[in-house]
Amino acid sequence: MATATRKKTTRKKTTRKKTTTRRAKTDKKVYYFGPSKTDGDGSMKQLLGGKGANLAEMTDIGLPVPPGFTVTTETCADYYKVGGKLPAGLMDEVRENMKRMERDTGKKFGSDSDPLLVSVRSGAAASMPGMMDTVLNLGLTDKSLDGLQSATGKTRFALDAYRRLINMFGDVVMGVDHHAFEDEFDRIKKKHNAATDNDLGVEGMEELVDAYKKVYKKHTGEQFPQDPYVQLEKSLEAVFKSWNTPRAIRYRQINEITGLQGTAVNIQTMVFGNMGDDSGTGVAFTRDPSTGKNEFYGEFLINAQGEDVVAGIRTPKPVKEMPRWDRRSYDQLIKIKTKLEKHYKDVQDLEFTIERKKLYILQTRNGKRTGPAAVKIACDMVKERLIDQKTAVLRVPPNDLNQLLLPSLDPKAKRDVIAEGLPASPGAAVGKLAFTAAEAADRTQDGEKVLLVRRETSPEDIDGMHAAQGILTSTGGMTSHAAVVARGWGKPCVAGAGAIHIDEKKRKITVNGRTFTAKDTLTLDGGTGQVLAGEIATIEPKLSGDFATLMKWADRMRTLKVRTNADTPEDSQRARDFGAEGIGLCRTEHMFFEGSRIKAMREMIVAETEAARRKALDKLLPYQREDFIGIFTAMKGLPVTVRLLDPPLHEFLPHDAKAQQDLAKTLGIKPAKLKQRVAELHEMNPMLGHRGCRLAVTYPEILEMQVRAIVEAAMACQKKKVQAKPEIMIPLVGTAEELDLLRGLAEQTIASVKKEHKHKGRLDISIGTMIEIPRAALTADDIAEHADFFSFGTNDLTQLTFGYSRDDVGTFLGDYLAKELLPKDPFQSLDATGVGQLVAMGCEKGRKTKKDLKLGICGEHGGDPSSVEFCHKVGLDYVSCSPFRVPIARLAAAQAAVRNSK
Amino acid sequence: MATATRKKTTRKKTTRKKTTTRRAKTDKKVYYFGPSKTDGDGSMKQLLGGKGANLAEMTDIGLPVPPGFTVTTETCADYYKVGGKLPAGLMDEVRENMKRMERDTGKKFGSDSDPLLVSVRSGAAASMPGMMDTVLNLGLTDKSLDGLQSATGKTRFALDAYRRLINMFGDVVMGVDHHAFEDEFDRIKKKHNAATDNDLGVEGMEELVDAYKKVYKKHTGEQFPQDPYVQLEKSLEAVFKSWNTPRAIRYRQINEITGLQGTAVNIQTMVFGNMGDDSGTGVAFTRDPSTGKNEFYGEFLINAQGEDVVAGIRTPKPVKEMPRWDRRSYDQLIKIKTKLEKHYKDVQDLEFTIERKKLYILQTRNGKRTGPAAVKIACDMVKERLIDQKTAVLRVPPNDLNQLLLPSLDPKAKRDVIAEGLPASPGAAVGKLAFTAAEAADRTQDGEKVLLVRRETSPEDIDGMHAAQGILTSTGGMTSHAAVVARGWGKPCVAGAGAIHIDEKKRKITVNGRTFTAKDTLTLDGGTGQVLAGEIATIEPKLSGDFATLMKWADRMRTLKVRTNADTPEDSQRARDFGAEGIGLCRTEHMFFEGSRIKAMREMIVAETEAARRKALDKLLPYQREDFIGIFTAMKGLPVTVRLLDPPLHEFLPHDAKAQQDLAKTLGIKPAKLKQRVAELHEMNPMLGHRGCRLAVTYPEILEMQVRAIVEAAMACQKKKVQAKPEIMIPLVGTAEELDLLRGLAEQTIASVKKEHKHKGRLDISIGTMIEIPRAALTADDIAEHADFFSFGTNDLTQLTFGYSRDDVGTFLGDYLAKELLPKDPFQSLDATGVGQLVAMGCEKGRKTKKDLKLGICGEHGGDPSSVEFCHKVGLDYVSCSPFRVPIARLAAAQAAVRNSK
Repeated sequence: MATATRKKTTRKKTTRKKTTTRRAKTDKKVYYFGPSKTDGDGSMKQLLGGKGANLAEMTDIGLPVPPGFTVTTETCADYYKVGGKLPAGLMDEVRENMKRMERDTGKKFGSDSDPLLVSVRSGAAASMPGMMDTVLNLGLTDKSLDGLQSATGKTRFALDAYRRLINMFGDVVMGVDHHAFEDEFDRIKKKHNAATDNDLGVEGMEELVDAYKKVYKKHTGEQFPQDPYVQLEKSLEAVFKSWNTPRAIRYRQINEITGLQGTAVNIQTMVFGNMGDDSGTGVAFTRDPSTGKNEFYGEFLINAQGEDVVAGIRTPKPVKEMPRWDRRSYDQLIKIKTKLEKHYKDVQDLEFTIERKKLYILQTRNGKRTGPAAVKIACDMVKERLIDQKTAVLRVPPNDLNQLLLPSLDPKAKRDVIAEGLPASPGAAVGKLAFTAAEAADRTQDGEKVLLVRRETSPEDIDGMHAAQGILTSTGGMTSHAAVVARGWGKPCVAGAGAIHIDEKKRKITVNGRTFTAKDTLTLDGGTGQVLAGEIATIEPKLSGDFATLMKWADRMRTLKVRTNADTPEDSQRARDFGAEGIGLCRTEHMFFEGSRIKAMREMIVAETEAARRKALDKLLPYQREDFIGIFTAMKGLPVTVRLLDPPLHEFLPHDAKAQQDLAKTLGIKPAKLKQRVAELHEMNPMLGHRGCRLAVTYPEILEMQVRAIVEAAMACQKKKVQAKPEIMIPLVGTAEELDLLRGLAEQTIASVKKEHKHKGRLDISIGTMIEIPRAALTADDIAEHADFFSFGTNDLTQLTFGYSRDDVGTFLGDYLAKELLPKDPFQSLDATGVGQLVAMGCEKGRKTKKDLKLGICGEHGGDPSSVEFCHKVGLDYVSCSPFRVPIARLAAAQAAVRNSK
Repeated sequence: MATATRKKTTRKKTTRKKTTTRRAKTDKKVYYFGPSKTDGDGSMKQLLGGKGANLAEMTDIGLPVPPGFTVTTETCADYYKVGGKLPAGLMDEVRENMKRMERDTGKKFGSDSDPLLVSVRSGAAASMPGMMDTVLNLGLTDKSLDGLQSATGKTRFALDAYRRLINMFGDVVMGVDHHAFEDEFDRIKKKHNAATDNDLGVEGMEELVDAYKKVYKKHTGEQFPQDPYVQLEKSLEAVFKSWNTPRAIRYRQINEITGLQGTAVNIQTMVFGNMGDDSGTGVAFTRDPSTGKNEFYGEFLINAQGEDVVAGIRTPKPVKEMPRWDRRSYDQLIKIKTKLEKHYKDVQDLEFTIERKKLYILQTRNGKRTGPAAVKIACDMVKERLIDQKTAVLRVPPNDLNQLLLPSLDPKAKRDVIAEGLPASPGAAVGKLAFTAAEAADRTQDGEKVLLVRRETSPEDIDGMHAAQGILTSTGGMTSHAAVVARGWGKPCVAGAGAIHIDEKKRKITVNGRTFTAKDTLTLDGGTGQVLAGEIATIEPKLSGDFATLMKWADRMRTLKVRTNADTPEDSQRARDFGAEGIGLCRTEHMFFEGSRIKAMREMIVAETEAARRKALDKLLPYQREDFIGIFTAMKGLPVTVRLLDPPLHEFLPHDAKAQQDLAKTLGIKPAKLKQRVAELHEMNPMLGHRGCRLAVTYPEILEMQVRAIVEAAMACQKKKVQAKPEIMIPLVGTAEELDLLRGLAEQTIASVKKEHKHKGRLDISIGTMIEIPRAALTADDIAEHADFFSFGTNDLTQLTFGYSRDDVGTFLGDYLAKELLPKDPFQSLDATGVGQLVAMGCEKGRKTKKDLKLGICGEHGGDPSSVEFCHKVGLDYVSCSPFRVPIARLAAAQAAVRNSK
């Protein structure tokens, strides 16, 4: 049999450790919280559990929390130490604290007039959702049931509370199968012709309570306990036991929760918002979570329980209408709003209940908010001196800036989702369907708004992609061609929507039995990956002064520079507007796809001799030079990293027979010959084929033309008083020898172009390489000998380190994420564990050889906040990302700097 | 401008450092060797250079070496220290030693009766070929020319010697452009109607000498020196100067030759084998280099110079005929043979010259030999107590064993090479051309011998490949499908012969203007990659008793185990016969390609539900079980590593329309549906796609079937008293989570099959993984938690570490090797610098987690000697290779153990 020990140490989740105040162990087992006194505080998570510490904290700052107490985690540990018995003296302490609760609430546990009911909940120092269920309404007995009825005047309410207790106590504490209760409920509902639970009247409820008691007796052999303290003691013990069930142990193993001594138990007064028209319940935010405006915001329902607000059966009223109903509670809430923000230094999302005119706060936590709200709140709170600038910068999730930068779907609009793909490029787009790039370009010219729908796009589709409002593909991942190009333009894209079958010939798509043609309109939500039928209203972005303020702060805090990936003067200008400090990746291949350029490019590829290739390259030279002049001029002296030709040559040739025939005619060669050349260039795995610097090794003249174009452009700029700073980047280097050879060739070319033009001045041109092949990272010390800079190409590095093709990963990535074999899509968020090791190694080895080696990243990860933090920690000089992600990267870089300086 | 310092530290060649005896510096500048005394010896390479030390050594052991002396490397250093002047006293020492040479030879330098002529050669401690040319015949002047004529009676000979000296001295010492001499030669030949140099008579030669002197005068401004000591002094200085020419400096940089102080200079007596019929020259081996037989072996020519033997203008005679001509010299040679072997402990390849009945030995070095000879000589020398067993084992280059194991082309046969490809699988094959696998199979059945000729093969071609005598492909590398499969079978294969254009439809190939059809016969030499027209005679291999002896010694010395890659009982048996100690890689996919299996496989792939997949898998189960029973039985208790299904599913589906239609009919589904499934499975980069353990993640039922087949086969073997030892290997793991999940699934399956069969006994089944994804090596510590063993899949690891597709690397690998960007094909010989780092990391991290983790390698590198040495050093437990390479790996492992224990 297999002998390996199976340890679950590898499925790491985000850490759950928090620093808490450790205290010397005392004999005190129970910590009270309530108006008369509070024993604990928010720092005592280890001893009181997360929930217990929070309740103490809330009470401590004077919030009207229903009183209660917490049995410590140490007591749980003691329970196990003495072999699974409640420690001596525990129940005495519990009774003492129950007495105090009775005094604080004016109710009595088990009373037949106004009985105190309590909830019992587990609560460890780390969140362990679902470890143990809750028992509510504890303290109800036949006797106190009468009390509850008479105190509230609500017979059905009281009966319902009682049958719920019997059910929960039976199930959670005594292990009675809950189906046994449900069967009885069904039987009685049927008997009384009640369609839903709520249709069952008082008579039926009475029968139900009796029936539940019988179920309880039958399965436990005992009567349902009529002593409330027996209920309490058994519940307490059940919570302790739940700590070491196999399910709980497994949960802690998987999540690597270690060092805890046990769970605490929270016993708290029950309050009811459904005790009549003087009761109610609501949820509220201390500021508007949608706009960030500093006004109390929320909803409430009269005579209802908390779950009614959530369930949406009744329509709640806005809190500003509350004064008309209960001004005292409203005023109290407004005071609490201020108190909460002052204490927690952030917007709070709170739950409250009013039981017979008395306000209780049940929970408060930091409120979720939209991007624009997050920016406004952060800036306002600095103005209000609630927080400092660093805290403000940390408060805005970088990705939420997308909501400020791109159009988004109106959240109120109804959505008819027909498919979901990957959220490849954020923003919202509406249009009719176009099935080829040419069609998209044509129909756009005719004034139509279209979405380009393709299995996958290729460089040939560039024009149509640019013309379309948005792009939808049925295959391909987050870093497929469509996704990368779309993000570069800030154009919405949903990629890899696999459920959609595209019939290009019949010009229609089918998805789950529905068909859409060229006449139909769809909407893409690039932020979520949803594809929606029809036109959904969109909201245009607005940039506020607060945004500028926040970014100014962020820029002061960060140490990482932020560059952009851009291939045109327009993109370069846009990126500068977004704050880019240079171009980290200027791909030169995109430049070859337009009209007469692609013809010359194809001539070059089909050429059979070096001379013929050089002739074709001579035609490309002026285009390239103009491209670079445009980009250098737009960047006004900022560095521009130009990557030499990277993709395999076959990407530039047409693949269908008709287009090949046309091309053969244009080039004046035999179709068979062209076909043969296409076949020669075909590769089984083009990603691992003849591309990158391998092209320059076999066709040095391509490199020479590109370097010449760069040098001549830089000289032309110098004449215009623009100090161009090109950085020549040689892609796909795997051995120091490659870079040595090609650097030499580039240097020779620079020297000879300067000589030819009799150029006297200094040109600021450096030469470096991409680190995107694992072997390059492994041998970075050797490679650094020949490089002025490294730029980590983490797209390809991720492909090769994992052995995942970006174009094909869609076939299994979904399964991998669903089965938690990967924490995230590694093409979106840098895999620090594996790929990160190579990046770190590349940095370390590179700088060992050359202390001042400039280091950057130009993969898609450069715009991902968690990857940006990794880049900061590993010591890169800059990240580079698509223009629309530049502000996100700037903010993420600032957060990384703040977080890691602490 | 670019600022990186360009240092050439990366192009590492094999090390050139030898340990030599360092002596305290003395004033002695010249070391004599000759019959009267010898100052140096073979250990003094640093001081005397390689050549000088060897000459001293040869003289020292009593060989009749033409006497001479060596000016030390220290003197060269001194030359530079004093600013480029010959150190004081040097020429005095030179003259002294010249006098001794005159005494030892009975000739006089510059004499007009029997003049002493000398050669001047450079010689540093490290070999630097071509650093400086040689000057021969030094000492000839107008005066001594007469002496040479009268001493030899050969006027033309003497004139020819003189004109050669003027030419060489002018060119090498004085820097006269050698074209200037050649132009004169051409002019005079034309004048005398001489077609070749040899046609020029005495008269012409005299004119030539005069003309050369004029050229010399014109270009140097001086007369050709008539003082032989002037010639000598100038030549000496020229050699010293040659040490620091840019060419020499560059050569030392490239080859990382450091720590040398300069070059030595060797001045040695000239001897001539062409002084008449009492003179001659020859080359000989101390044993037969072809068979290894212990008899003097060689050839000689009367009245000829050494180059005449090599040039092949005259046909030399075998040395055994020598006694009839000059018994004394022959007897002397036989004595020298014994002396040489006793001294050098190895077969020697020597050059000799007889000048007027006097024998001189000019050079001796270790003799090259064939594989069979190497084995026999090694064993014989142990018997003769010349060497010990360890030395014998080190003496045979492991790859040369191929000559003992496979048929080879008769080296005497004439070769008409029509193309060269990669030597993908050694051995010789002859046959007519077959263009499809089916054709190859059919024609073989009809009794024809055929070669299968394909652009590239795929698993569908297996039958035809097996039937063919050999395989020829026009694309693909050393580890392409064709190459890997052919090596596994020991079948000759030439891969990637790019010059060959295959026209499958017209059933012909064209190559460099020649056409071959199905009726034509070609011969493949898998050992060299040559493709030859017509049928070349082949030699069948013979295994000698010496082979067994040598392998026995090797097995005792090695610590690495050697396993084999085998997928069938036949291969397993063959590998055992070759000494395999288990199966390191049993690929299961090959098992699915036969008749009814592939049908069930295809049903499985096309199935749309898990239930339908399971139904198809149930059909495959009995086949798999039988396969495993056969293999386990053949291996008789040795471990068998079974790799679960690895290739992407589309490899099992037909890709042309016709075959798809047929298949659709067979499977009873619509052709359109099958086409759609094929399209769905299409991948841009299948190497990086949905394969390996990724298949098991999405289709766990495949893994379950395979594990069930393994377990049931093991149980069936146990009943037959065969103790099967399967090792289940999960391929393409990149994350610990994958292995955790799939190991769990495999363990569950093992447990449930055992339970189902009520199996009580112990089954020896372990579970491990391949380390073939860079990320797996980087996270080997985590992965080892779930593995009993690692097997390094260095084929894929090399692909991913370099980013090279094995199938496509042919497009640029040639350029890379030619330009020395790669030292070797990394798919043949493990790249220790890059890939090796990951292997070492995998070993270290794996064993850190689990001290006794079993480590092996199953890539193609397992059969490459230098890779085997790497595996030994890095601490692997075993290597695994194709059956025919098992002996090679055994020998290489022994050599690694011996070399690294020193």
